[in-house]
Amino acid sequence: ALIVYRLPWTWKCSKLLMKFIHAGLNTIAMILAIVSMVAVFEYHNARNIPNMYSLHSWIGLTAVIFYSLQLFLGFAVFLLPFAPVPLRAALMPIHVYSGLTIFATVIATALMGITEKLIFSLKNPAYSALPPEATFVNCLGLLLVIFGALILWMASRPHWKRPLEENTEVLRPIGGTPEGTEAESTMTDGSNAEKSDLKISSEAARKQNLKLDEACQRSTM
Amino acid sequence: ALIVYRLPWTWKCSKLLMKFIHAGLNTIAMILAIVSMVAVFEYHNARNIPNMYSLHSWIGLTAVIFYSLQLFLGFAVFLLPFAPVPLRAALMPIHVYSGLTIFATVIATALMGITEKLIFSLKNPAYSALPPEATFVNCLGLLLVIFGALILWMASRPHWKRPLEENTEVLRPIGGTPEGTEAESTMTDGSNAEKSDLKISSEAARKQNLKLDEACQRSTM
Repeated sequence: ALIVYRLPWTWKCSKLLMKFIHAGLNTIAMILAIVSMVAVFEYHNARNIPNMYSLHSWIGLTAVIFYSLQLFLGFAVFLLPFAPVPLRAALMPIHVYSGLTIFATVIATALMGITEKLIFSLKNPAYSALPPEATFVNCLGLLLVIFGALILWMASRPHWKRPLEENTEVLRPIGGTPEGTEAESTMTDGSNAEKSDLKISSEAARKQNLKLDEACQRSTM
Repeated sequence: ALIVYRLPWTWKCSKLLMKFIHAGLNTIAMILAIVSMVAVFEYHNARNIPNMYSLHSWIGLTAVIFYSLQLFLGFAVFLLPFAPVPLRAALMPIHVYSGLTIFATVIATALMGITEKLIFSLKNPAYSALPPEATFVNCLGLLLVIFGALILWMASRPHWKRPLEENTEVLRPIGGTPEGTEAESTMTDGSNAEKSDLKISSEAARKQNLKLDEACQRSTM
């Protein structure tokens, strides 16, 4: 769900379809998270294990709460057609940052859960004797870190961003006033093709953004 | 060390001084990491606890290896004056990404270490009974996550980037060829003030970058 906007084949879809894919995948993930949390509580109760004592559970529950908030706000602000463009513009960087931070936190929570499970379950031989199961699960944990790092790489590359559409701002000589270029409506994106006077070559826009991002990077080199 | 370039008071320092602060703080952190790793191995050996069996240790050692690689490459490419500008430009996004990813991985490793320590050390009452020590350390773990999230927020805000200097690229009308603007030398940054013909208002450049970053964000709204 996190990298829907970074996959070149989705750049051909309408923006609305991409949003639906993004929101749909996240909704499925949320449902799975709730199902697994219920399963954990049921398992604990059936085995008389206390709930919510570990750091894993604290951080995990915090992440799920923030995730549901993120899903609700994303739905209300970016999918429904009621939020004004300035509000969307103000919330978008926060939405992107929260999404990536929640993702990283969930990876960390999973690693803590794996650590707990290995310590509690491996008794004879113990985890510290590094039986084959422990090596196997440690490798899974490492793969989880590599997976997280790859997703964060894909999500944070400026040239993997979806190309600009209907936004002439970057093509105007700098210093020009930007009035009247923010008229973007969510629910009418299907009619992109009709606005050909505003539409710019998306490849050119992509390269332009890339160049400017590089210029920005250079400032701390 | 990670947010040196994001603190407005450092924008008044020369770029070289900022680099020295960044490299110096990271070198101190690396020395502390090595000291603590030696302490862990000594402690394990003294108590006959096996080394390097847990996921915490695997991921922690991986992070330290990548951190030393990052430090060495950063020193060789960005601090020494030998690397050509195109190489710096190519490696800078990787350097930034690796730094942030290693930072997040270290936070995750610390959380796993805290989980292990709580399970192993709290026996009577056990961790699962949530004694005051457990609550206290769980809160420390949560604070660690909040700390990590704040640092990543500061490091990833485009308008908290150090303003551009001596880079006229963003001020030229788009479409112009960018030849001859990349002549930036590391070791001569002290003489910035003399190049006033090339120097642009850094505040204007900052705002310009901000506007362009926003334009880029809008493409997926």
